[in-house]
Amino acid sequence: MIEGLAARMAEISSFQVMSLLARSRELEAQGKRIIHMEIGEPDFSTPEPIVAAGIRALAAGRTHYTPATGLPELRAAVANYYQTRYGQKVNADQVVITPGSSGALLLALGALLNPDDQVLMADPGYPCNRNFVRFLNGEPISIGVDATTQFQLTDDLLAHHWQPTTKAVIVASPTNPVGSVLPAKPLANIAKAVRQRGGYLIVDEIYHGLEYTDKLPTILSIDEQAFVVNSFSKYFGMTGWRLGWLIAPKQFVPAIERLAQNIFLAPSTPGQYAALAAFDESTMRILQQRRDEFRQRRDYLVPALQALGFTIPCLPQGAFYIYANCSRFTDNSFDFCHRLLEEVGVAVTPGSDFGDRQAAQHIRFAYTTNEENLREGVRRLTKHLASIKQ
Amino acid sequence: MIEGLAARMAEISSFQVMSLLARSRELEAQGKRIIHMEIGEPDFSTPEPIVAAGIRALAAGRTHYTPATGLPELRAAVANYYQTRYGQKVNADQVVITPGSSGALLLALGALLNPDDQVLMADPGYPCNRNFVRFLNGEPISIGVDATTQFQLTDDLLAHHWQPTTKAVIVASPTNPVGSVLPAKPLANIAKAVRQRGGYLIVDEIYHGLEYTDKLPTILSIDEQAFVVNSFSKYFGMTGWRLGWLIAPKQFVPAIERLAQNIFLAPSTPGQYAALAAFDESTMRILQQRRDEFRQRRDYLVPALQALGFTIPCLPQGAFYIYANCSRFTDNSFDFCHRLLEEVGVAVTPGSDFGDRQAAQHIRFAYTTNEENLREGVRRLTKHLASIKQ
Repeated sequence: MIEGLAARMAEISSFQVMSLLARSRELEAQGKRIIHMEIGEPDFSTPEPIVAAGIRALAAGRTHYTPATGLPELRAAVANYYQTRYGQKVNADQVVITPGSSGALLLALGALLNPDDQVLMADPGYPCNRNFVRFLNGEPISIGVDATTQFQLTDDLLAHHWQPTTKAVIVASPTNPVGSVLPAKPLANIAKAVRQRGGYLIVDEIYHGLEYTDKLPTILSIDEQAFVVNSFSKYFGMTGWRLGWLIAPKQFVPAIERLAQNIFLAPSTPGQYAALAAFDESTMRILQQRRDEFRQRRDYLVPALQALGFTIPCLPQGAFYIYANCSRFTDNSFDFCHRLLEEVGVAVTPGSDFGDRQAAQHIRFAYTTNEENLREGVRRLTKHLASIKQ
Repeated sequence: MIEGLAARMAEISSFQVMSLLARSRELEAQGKRIIHMEIGEPDFSTPEPIVAAGIRALAAGRTHYTPATGLPELRAAVANYYQTRYGQKVNADQVVITPGSSGALLLALGALLNPDDQVLMADPGYPCNRNFVRFLNGEPISIGVDATTQFQLTDDLLAHHWQPTTKAVIVASPTNPVGSVLPAKPLANIAKAVRQRGGYLIVDEIYHGLEYTDKLPTILSIDEQAFVVNSFSKYFGMTGWRLGWLIAPKQFVPAIERLAQNIFLAPSTPGQYAALAAFDESTMRILQQRRDEFRQRRDYLVPALQALGFTIPCLPQGAFYIYANCSRFTDNSFDFCHRLLEEVGVAVTPGSDFGDRQAAQHIRFAYTTNEENLREGVRRLTKHLASIKQ
């Protein structure tokens, strides 16, 4: 332990995929072609109408601070999107524009958590969630989930794990790394279980729009007292701009505004002006095409991986991930990932980045690269797996 | 208190100037012309070469995530700037690009503070500093300062206030709201006092470049174990882009990188590509001109305010603020600010936004508007003050 380092830092680990990324950069520098199936970011750049709006804003000198909660017209545009997409009325005053969904989660948890408060979340799950809680000196409680609940928390699991110090619950739909979703009924059951116990529900909807099933409900159609975390990153293709939003229950908004003033000042101005074009019809057409392409990739890759001998415990319904059981080939998914990279130049993410539950038996494939690359990846996997004693 | 709200939120207050800002917007909507001397942001837009670099990056599709610590070439450019500006060698690996200096402070404090650790800081001072500490469940200790120490902490003050739970000290040079600076000698004394006691020193250098005195030293020329918080916002005119940097002692960098990965993912990509042009000669020429203009404004406004009867306890040496004693006119600076706004349309910031020490006797003028506006502001102040019984 480094002298002077806060105790929380002993628990906030880096992602295992980082060492794989560093190694794949080395291999690429040596001239090797790496097939990237580890990256949690769309391969598409930001849609042209959004980029054009950003360029126009810069040319017009829009480089000053905005209000801490964001441009009023962008807050209104987000609220309006809930009306058009979900038929759900959202008050623009409850929409807080944030530096990515990371900023949204930091504000929500900052407004809710006292030291040692517990936050329940699924394992496997988005790895940063537990570290946001640790950052604020809360206690993340990872609840192991599996295919029997579509890798989602349930009201029963919440009832089983609830403690007097439990303050909040984080769920996601679609999830990273599984791509499983929460339809209205199980989501309503979760919301009810949380409300009955006096807790607070935070729903990560950042992969909304990238669902390959019936249109998903927003939690706000079910429980207006929930917190919604969302983002312009994934569906809208604005990862590098770092722009997201939080929708908070009305009574929390003044506190969240104070917090945003203090810890962020404001979200990025060029990004906000660019995002005003995110809901344009021309953008929406591009986003639909991209979603269709993600679905095609999924429809190719899932059976291809199954044919190779991976078990896919839960058919992904959204996002751009496949969570695959690799126990037929290894009892150490981290080593397996490193061998894949070294021997056939395929990068995937080990399960240990998403939690502890059966992490050594799972890896995550991201279909954030085009179908030609995916096919090449599968060819390489075929070759590699044939060389392994099964 | 709102049910469910974290206890810290009771102490994290909004800025008083916000109510003045809201009221000035109302008055402007009614057609009134407001003279803004409350805004802590340069009135200049981002310099053209930086904007052009941002536009080029967007046109080239630079919209994906960068590494969590920032673009390697920007980290190198910042490190190189320390060589050219200060003659100080800085390792690019110790430079972490952040979402504003707010992000830099959050990372430094997040890596240092355990719950209830104390952080010493000056009162008056930048109002968010104490709230960052509260956000992380630490305890901010505000030390009242005055003209006898140029409104700066000193080694003596640190010795007097140091407790077993004191972990870190935040100083700034130039400061907000006073504009006072720390030359090499007092800065070295502070650094020594902190090191002797096993604490950590964080130096806010975000107004570096905007000094109207001898070139200020960076703390790194004095103490390589200090943390430097800096920003592209103020001197480089990139406020709305939300981009800053942290320079951390080498042994803290891996932890800070993990923290940045988790709580931010990465700083804004368009902003980082734009900032690559911040150190160009063409940009530097613009920045010098702007600094000269700020100095001219200060040189006009300081004697003009003194002639009106304000006492300026410390002649500002940097930044773009004048901290003025208004006790000749009022014993309640907050009411005074509201009357100024209502009666003559001049907006300034009450001392209470910067701490508790003699806050009711002070207001902050920002010379972030052109000299014509400053002269109109002074005319209106003259009229208003003449109407007050002194």
